Amino acid sequence: MSDLTLILGNKAYSSWSLRPWLALKQAGLPFTETVIPLRQPDTAARIRSHSPSGRVPCLIHGGITVWDSLAICEYVAEIAPGAGLWPADRTARAVARSISSEMHSGFASLRNTMSMDLKRDRHGEGMTPETAADIARIETLWADARAGSGRGSETGGPFLFGGFTIADAMFAPVVTRLETYGVAVRPETRAYMDAVLALPALRQWIADAKAEPWVL
Amino acid sequence: MSDLTLILGNKAYSSWSLRPWLALKQAGLPFTETVIPLRQPDTAARIRSHSPSGRVPCLIHGGITVWDSLAICEYVAEIAPGAGLWPADRTARAVARSISSEMHSGFASLRNTMSMDLKRDRHGEGMTPETAADIARIETLWADARAGSGRGSETGGPFLFGGFTIADAMFAPVVTRLETYGVAVRPETRAYMDAVLALPALRQWIADAKAEPWVL
Ligand SMILES: N[C@@H](CCC(=O)N[C@@H](CS)C(=O)NCC(=O)O)C(=O)O
Ligand SMILES: N[C@@H](CCC(=O)N[C@@H](CS)C(=O)NCC(=O)O)C(=O)O
Repeated sequence: MSDLTLILGNKAYSSWSLRPWLALKQAGLPFTETVIPLRQPDTAARIRSHSPSGRVPCLIHGGITVWDSLAICEYVAEIAPGAGLWPADRTARAVARSISSEMHSGFASLRNTMSMDLKRDRHGEGMTPETAADIARIETLWADARAGSGRGSETGGPFLFGGFTIADAMFAPVVTRLETYGVAVRPETRAYMDAVLALPALRQWIADAKAEPWVL
Repeated sequence: MSDLTLILGNKAYSSWSLRPWLALKQAGLPFTETVIPLRQPDTAARIRSHSPSGRVPCLIHGGITVWDSLAICEYVAEIAPGAGLWPADRTARAVARSISSEMHSGFASLRNTMSMDLKRDRHGEGMTPETAADIARIETLWADARAGSGRGSETGGPFLFGGFTIADAMFAPVVTRLETYGVAVRPETRAYMDAVLALPALRQWIADAKAEPWVL
């Protein structure tokens, strides 16, 4: 029994839920999972019984309720200070937070036309000029983060800031989308995607998603 | 001369820019302002010369560039640790980050139908059922934050967590919208709005906005 419980949407479709789930896994914190399937008659009521915003994800830690993917990730970084969930260097951390926030409130077109779907192969679907622009920006910001660009990026790992950070968690559902929708990407984008897709935790999430009964 | 420069959109319309501007002011940090008027022929090029995301706000600190309102606020909290920009109590901080993030990626209807406009009286405009639902949720989360709800909220001030925090900065453009669009609100919502609208820094922003030449 852990005193951390993460309330999630379906793993196949809830891109926001994947983010803090992956941060918790990468931090090595044990937690209980409660999956609430989306778009069922009782979905809204079930979510609202846990989450003040009426949305998932939401983290319960003893008497504390934390909601919204990014706020949960910040909270996990606080309770697992040794996990390196943000870069130790202030400049790298500022850039990691910048791209995490850019993801959190941006890329509406990519999110709409290529919604996360871990159940089906959707090669060729969803591409629009706006989505292509979103993907181009993401490829650039991934490359900039990985190059360090004089921003003090830590090295020694294949992720955006070397070792795994919240920035990688925030973009993990973009990695799966590029894969699911068969988007042609730059070689360095492919290398980054491969590193993320090789994470045992993400592989477990994808396997769980495929095993879920609900198809939306 | 300060080594902090904040790149902003027009004060009359750029709700995202107001947030970190207010955080910097409330933290007492001196900074230089560069306003780039939105929707002009050279807007995109001017923003892009500073901001990797192609959006404002963006903060330059020596050689460091930080962008996106929420990431800039987090950065300001780091460089001004004595300013109390997040609640000191972990639980209150988690809730403050939850509502700040909920604002950052949510309330799309309110943002669309009642866009920030500090130049005109727009009483009665913009109300739709979705916007009313956004406002109802915001009134509830403000009330919950101010009540503490067993969340360890600090007391001793009229703001969401007692003293001014980033959560107040994130919601400041909602306060001005409720005022500009003449939305009928609960008494406790009005009390909170009055506290925010009385901030000398916000009054200065509004005066600057009214003095700007551009009307969109
Ligand atoms: N800004 C939120 C977005 C969360 C969100 O939109 N969650 C969706 C599922 S991925 C949800 O709960 N929808 C409510 C519903 O479908 O009833 C976050 O970052 O956590
Ligand atoms: N997620 C961003 C949103 C910033 C944003 O959308 N800024 C608008 C102005 S308020 C912008 O720069 N638009 C570009 C343009 O108008 O050219 C943040 O929180 O800072």
